[in-house]
Amino acid sequence: MHILIIGAAGMLGRKLTQRLVRDGATDALTLADVVPPETPAGFTGTATCLAADLSAPGTAAQLIAGRPDVIFHFAAIVSGEAEAEFEKGYRINLDGTWALFEAIRQAHLADGYFPRVVFASSIAVVGAPLPFPIPDDFHTTPLTSYGTQKAISELLLADYTRHGFFDGIGIRLPTICIRPGVPNKAASGFFSNILREPLVGQPAVLPVPDTIRHWHTSPRSAVGFMIHAATMDTAAIGPRRNLSMPGLSATVGEQIEALRRVAGDKAVALIRREPDPFITRMCESWAPGFEATRARALGFTAEDSFDDIIRVHVEDELGGTL
Amino acid sequence: MHILIIGAAGMLGRKLTQRLVRDGATDALTLADVVPPETPAGFTGTATCLAADLSAPGTAAQLIAGRPDVIFHFAAIVSGEAEAEFEKGYRINLDGTWALFEAIRQAHLADGYFPRVVFASSIAVVGAPLPFPIPDDFHTTPLTSYGTQKAISELLLADYTRHGFFDGIGIRLPTICIRPGVPNKAASGFFSNILREPLVGQPAVLPVPDTIRHWHTSPRSAVGFMIHAATMDTAAIGPRRNLSMPGLSATVGEQIEALRRVAGDKAVALIRREPDPFITRMCESWAPGFEATRARALGFTAEDSFDDIIRVHVEDELGGTL
Repeated sequence: MHILIIGAAGMLGRKLTQRLVRDGATDALTLADVVPPETPAGFTGTATCLAADLSAPGTAAQLIAGRPDVIFHFAAIVSGEAEAEFEKGYRINLDGTWALFEAIRQAHLADGYFPRVVFASSIAVVGAPLPFPIPDDFHTTPLTSYGTQKAISELLLADYTRHGFFDGIGIRLPTICIRPGVPNKAASGFFSNILREPLVGQPAVLPVPDTIRHWHTSPRSAVGFMIHAATMDTAAIGPRRNLSMPGLSATVGEQIEALRRVAGDKAVALIRREPDPFITRMCESWAPGFEATRARALGFTAEDSFDDIIRVHVEDELGGTL
Repeated sequence: MHILIIGAAGMLGRKLTQRLVRDGATDALTLADVVPPETPAGFTGTATCLAADLSAPGTAAQLIAGRPDVIFHFAAIVSGEAEAEFEKGYRINLDGTWALFEAIRQAHLADGYFPRVVFASSIAVVGAPLPFPIPDDFHTTPLTSYGTQKAISELLLADYTRHGFFDGIGIRLPTICIRPGVPNKAASGFFSNILREPLVGQPAVLPVPDTIRHWHTSPRSAVGFMIHAATMDTAAIGPRRNLSMPGLSATVGEQIEALRRVAGDKAVALIRREPDPFITRMCESWAPGFEATRARALGFTAEDSFDDIIRVHVEDELGGTL
């Protein structure tokens, strides 16, 4: 099984690679990103690691030259950057994705190539005002260029799949929590920061009220979505190829109470409230949660409680103990 | 008021041009299409008629060189052609539209140009299975490349508008009925044929059962939508810039009974039933009708009965009498 991961150097790309290697799911990996991904430790198959800009002419054709059986496409610039740099956002997040789909179509027309394509979409395809929970058939009216680019990519994926050029699935990822690593500049970073930092005795800033409700899943579940999308029987999906994934809807207050149960009052005391009206307004426009009825029926699963999300982090990032 | 109409040689483009001239709404018209549009009869202002392929490099910039205040964009290849000719469909229906939006953005960045842009979208942005009526917040999961291209254009329009590059509105047109002219090859043509032909004593073929329900509006109402979109206060719309227009939901049987009331049994007797399972299956996947709550609240209006739709045809196409 030859697997191509585009965006392999990112957090999810690396975790997916590790999981595929650990599971023995692949004997050939092509790993691409704007910076060259690392060869995965312990992998005994063939690994090809490439620095590649998907939107550059010819790059997509080059990436699929070895005709990978499964393609995971994570590559994107993030929401804030796509909003601030309009042209760059469309080039990377839309032109790049379309170039990939076009390269596959050309290969399909040339030699019948027909890979499974798993596309990382986002809950940013919906925009406020939003119901709670958001039903599967809710319209995509994004309020960011990033969300627009993801929504357009979803439409292309469904149409190329309908025409039989490849077997595509779009995975609308919830916000990943607890995101490992160091605090980043993303406006949504605090959802992870207020758990990850206190778990290791570090302070964290909470810029929004405890009542803010959002939609979360662990990195482990997100990787699980990708694996399931790559291996499931796609006949059951039908032509609506983009699926809102299951996740956990929780308020910030519920996150904090889960932290208290897992790590105690001392951890919670490390959260410093510094209300930020700008971030609060942004959060109020974000998705509070989805029904994800179709995805659950198709076998996608996620955590049922924030305690579980924190335990996953402790197991996967902190060696299993606090 | 300088007005640009792209797709001006088509049925709606010509009717819109006539209406604008009749109303004295414009002193400068730029009319573009793949074939050069005719200079409108009786127009005393400046008319520039151009043969133009919007998807060709530089064409969009040329079309807006005179900085029209309002741009109507109708240009598209039809559903059947976009499905059969995949590359051509994306080139004309998506690249062309995107090129127009990009040319306006460049002009905006250069000199603050900020036109009203009225985009003719389609009910083909939704795909079966469909509820009846279809709510305004129903997702766009098109089952044709044409519908995909319209849905993507809607997303681009909303994002470019949100960024302040132009003031855009997408108008999801119902099926136009009664379409004037001669019977065409469109699979939906019979909805008009079974009324238009018997009204002038000609036979018409009905390929589907009387129970098929669909969503209609007259050419006059469609032109009315465009005029209203061009002149309304857009502040009331908010960021969800694509609107399902009001229309009339009717079964084929209800169409026929309206024909009987307006033109008698003799007209109805000219309809010959020749069931076509292929066309019937297609029709069953089409939109049966929309709530169009937002568009109605924003002042868009359409016919309340098929008798009215037939009377509009008699007035506008047959000189007012049978």
